[in-house]
Amino acid sequence: MTLRGENLIGAEARRGTEAAFRAVEAATGRALEPDFPGADRGDLDRACALAEAAFDTFRETDPEARAGFLEAIAANILDIGDDLVTRCMAETGLPRPRIEGERARTVGQLRLFAGVVREGSYVEARIDPALPDRKPLPRPDLRLRRIAVGPVAVFGASNFPLAFSVAGGDTASALAAGCPVVVKAHPAHPGTSELVGRAIQKAVAACGLPEGTFSLLFDAGQSIGQGLVADPRIAAVGFTGSRRGGTALMAIAAGRPSPIPVYAEMSSINPVLLFPGALAARGAAIGKAFAASLTLGAGQFCTNPGLILALPGPGLDAFLEAAGAALRESPAATMLTPGIQRAYREAVARVAGHAAVTRIAEGAEGGATQGRATLFAADSDVFLADPELQEEMFGASGLVVRCADFAAMRAVLERLEGQLTASLHLAPEDHAAARDLLPLLERRVGRILVDGFGTGVEVAHAMVHGGPYPATSDGRTTSVGSLAIDRFLRPVSYQDVPDALLPAALQAANPLGLPRRIDGTPERR
Amino acid sequence: MTLRGENLIGAEARRGTEAAFRAVEAATGRALEPDFPGADRGDLDRACALAEAAFDTFRETDPEARAGFLEAIAANILDIGDDLVTRCMAETGLPRPRIEGERARTVGQLRLFAGVVREGSYVEARIDPALPDRKPLPRPDLRLRRIAVGPVAVFGASNFPLAFSVAGGDTASALAAGCPVVVKAHPAHPGTSELVGRAIQKAVAACGLPEGTFSLLFDAGQSIGQGLVADPRIAAVGFTGSRRGGTALMAIAAGRPSPIPVYAEMSSINPVLLFPGALAARGAAIGKAFAASLTLGAGQFCTNPGLILALPGPGLDAFLEAAGAALRESPAATMLTPGIQRAYREAVARVAGHAAVTRIAEGAEGGATQGRATLFAADSDVFLADPELQEEMFGASGLVVRCADFAAMRAVLERLEGQLTASLHLAPEDHAAARDLLPLLERRVGRILVDGFGTGVEVAHAMVHGGPYPATSDGRTTSVGSLAIDRFLRPVSYQDVPDALLPAALQAANPLGLPRRIDGTPERR
Repeated sequence: MTLRGENLIGAEARRGTEAAFRAVEAATGRALEPDFPGADRGDLDRACALAEAAFDTFRETDPEARAGFLEAIAANILDIGDDLVTRCMAETGLPRPRIEGERARTVGQLRLFAGVVREGSYVEARIDPALPDRKPLPRPDLRLRRIAVGPVAVFGASNFPLAFSVAGGDTASALAAGCPVVVKAHPAHPGTSELVGRAIQKAVAACGLPEGTFSLLFDAGQSIGQGLVADPRIAAVGFTGSRRGGTALMAIAAGRPSPIPVYAEMSSINPVLLFPGALAARGAAIGKAFAASLTLGAGQFCTNPGLILALPGPGLDAFLEAAGAALRESPAATMLTPGIQRAYREAVARVAGHAAVTRIAEGAEGGATQGRATLFAADSDVFLADPELQEEMFGASGLVVRCADFAAMRAVLERLEGQLTASLHLAPEDHAAARDLLPLLERRVGRILVDGFGTGVEVAHAMVHGGPYPATSDGRTTSVGSLAIDRFLRPVSYQDVPDALLPAALQAANPLGLPRRIDGTPERR
Repeated sequence: MTLRGENLIGAEARRGTEAAFRAVEAATGRALEPDFPGADRGDLDRACALAEAAFDTFRETDPEARAGFLEAIAANILDIGDDLVTRCMAETGLPRPRIEGERARTVGQLRLFAGVVREGSYVEARIDPALPDRKPLPRPDLRLRRIAVGPVAVFGASNFPLAFSVAGGDTASALAAGCPVVVKAHPAHPGTSELVGRAIQKAVAACGLPEGTFSLLFDAGQSIGQGLVADPRIAAVGFTGSRRGGTALMAIAAGRPSPIPVYAEMSSINPVLLFPGALAARGAAIGKAFAASLTLGAGQFCTNPGLILALPGPGLDAFLEAAGAALRESPAATMLTPGIQRAYREAVARVAGHAAVTRIAEGAEGGATQGRATLFAADSDVFLADPELQEEMFGASGLVVRCADFAAMRAVLERLEGQLTASLHLAPEDHAAARDLLPLLERRVGRILVDGFGTGVEVAHAMVHGGPYPATSDGRTTSVGSLAIDRFLRPVSYQDVPDALLPAALQAANPLGLPRRIDGTPERR
């Protein structure tokens, strides 16, 4: 499949007219063909106009049509074949098994949302029948459904070039909700983006959907992204990236004449709590597993375990010894982009320069595009005294914070900002201490794990990939799992509307076969 | 029951130390006893600290305990008896049947949420069981529930002194979700607020709940309200009031180090679309019904029908004649506060001074505390040319916009900001034209009514009292009806957490008897 460096604007493909950029081969730093000239304001305007024009048709497609569309996207992505995998590997430096796994995840995610659309409870269809004889006043007939919010702007993320990018979770859940999507491609993987974008564009045409259902725009800089968030036709934003980037988009969205929600997943250091019983029983094994999680994907996971809290003792010593040994043997790993690699080195150097922080271990020295695993340690009073130690080092680095007792551990957790995950490693005798801390953890994080690490994010109904600010901009939501569709829906109520004018979801005959609530109780079917 | 002019801070009642104010008898403008000295920063701090301290206990009360608490509040409000009705009438100028009806609504709303808490689907409990044999990787056990977001600040509204005030929909839904509530009383009805606040305070004690579950603060100015929204212990805000007030709170919330959601219901002119068939069949009857809706409660409803769109013809003439006749006979009505009365007079005078707007009718001239009904008319091009004609006149005034054809009506609707409601008056021959406009209306409003007016807002499962900005700050939500609880919840996921450490909602034995989804499908029970 030949890459053309073209923006995909509805059914069209056209090269932009703004400054061009190329992908960089992550491992070598060499530029890859072709050029990607940036979209201009006219491209942005046309993508938004088409999305707006598509909205009323697309949002009312029946469940089977929309589910079929999501499945067609999945099939088209697989049909690209190995060209997608090799291009993606070149652009990201991630190894083949990871990219193939991520492709499977992306396809699975689209299919999960096809199932969500067919099942239909996301519509939240409710009927409170009229009570004409009620005193003192009759009750009208009231019906409620949720509808799509409008066209959604999605920002591709650098670290998951498939699963959190052009056809990733934000796009899949927005399309499932009935929202047209305009994607701003991440400049770190434009070729991957074009390939996947064409797979979606092809599915739009094959399914006979309005062309504005999907567009894809390239830009070396920030003006297209900022313009999208400011555009009055855009109704919501999905973003995964840095805290600086996310808060900038939040400010644009809040400053619009008509503010819109920004779902930004930003930064997290994902505390890992090592309890004494677990450390005594299997400190070395946990240390080894931790090192594997820390270095997975060069540590470039939002759920990377960056903060370890533990009480001193032989168990912690065993953990540190095993983790240190594993990390010292870990090869340097190619990072996603030169910018990420530079930021990682700087973050590690900053922590390394801290007088009260010690370096426990580091991995092999790497080349100019690589990152090297590092493990630091400090006492909890040092951590509490310096808020900078809470900043994410995006890469394979972690900080072990020694807590003299559970009170000290609690003090650290109380000081923590919102996080995506927290992990607890427990033996049965640790349960009482864990139970004491769980309420606090629930308030700080979106997902609590026992005896594991947060780096595997299952695409499922019970997943929350979210958490209080600044892990995300909106802790009431998740960007992974079927609940992610909630972000792109709003309720509308219909009072005494004749059956012939009601949307199918709410008609008496229930032609869509949706699960519905009658007076608040699930309808028997 | 003697009023003491005291802030209720947890279990305490104490007079404030800041500038005192008194309620104003709406009909006469006379000050009413007692003084209400404003809360100071120490009171605010203590209310927030108590709410924070109460949170973990209160959010984990079992469904029966929380439902019983809501019912106890309802019973205590009724127990106040006529003292509540007479004080509320004096403070608001609203007539007895309205206040008694609103009390019934408030009590019914608390009981509805007791039912929501007992039924339990708001918890959104989900279980995706482990799949240890899945390839290439096993699936962990994943469970999800929604938990309360944290302490909530609620602002009492002037126009519904019971149903949207101290124990109104925001408070009822926040408490149902498990959030402690700190109410900033509306200064227009402090006596009503104190009476209702004591009813809640008594229920907190009787139910053995932590005292910080509820506090009530008085303030003549804005510093306590602003301080609440800025306080790091407050996790969400409920507000009903002016656009200026709501957007000010949104700005404070967005500017916090950790931003929080503000659910502000602000302004709406609630378009009423009169279709030709309906006008021909019953123009006069609709006109009369419209006048009754417009003047209800001196027009001081968020859902007041302030904008009427119709095609010219004999049907519209009959409507205008009947509406005009009814309005000319309508007595002037006491308004809630001197400030509201003044703002209403100014808004009416501004529209009356518009060169291309004509006055169709006005009601009786009133006294210094009263508002007079007014109906204006203009052509659609005049409306389109002047955005100020879209501004809410909070009171019994409406503007009829003559639209030459449906294209002109569509143009007006396209220009409209977000609204709480839209009403359509239809005969069967109007259905085709209505069907064309419905998608646009769905995008503009939270509730669509046929052959009625928005002024009755049923407390029900299928109600949406919300709508796109600026009708509310967040069109994804409703402030009335059982879905209002969603505003105060966030999901948390539990991965491989041992049953003994799981919250009861997610334990294998389902001790709370909650409705749950297994792998996305409702569990058979």
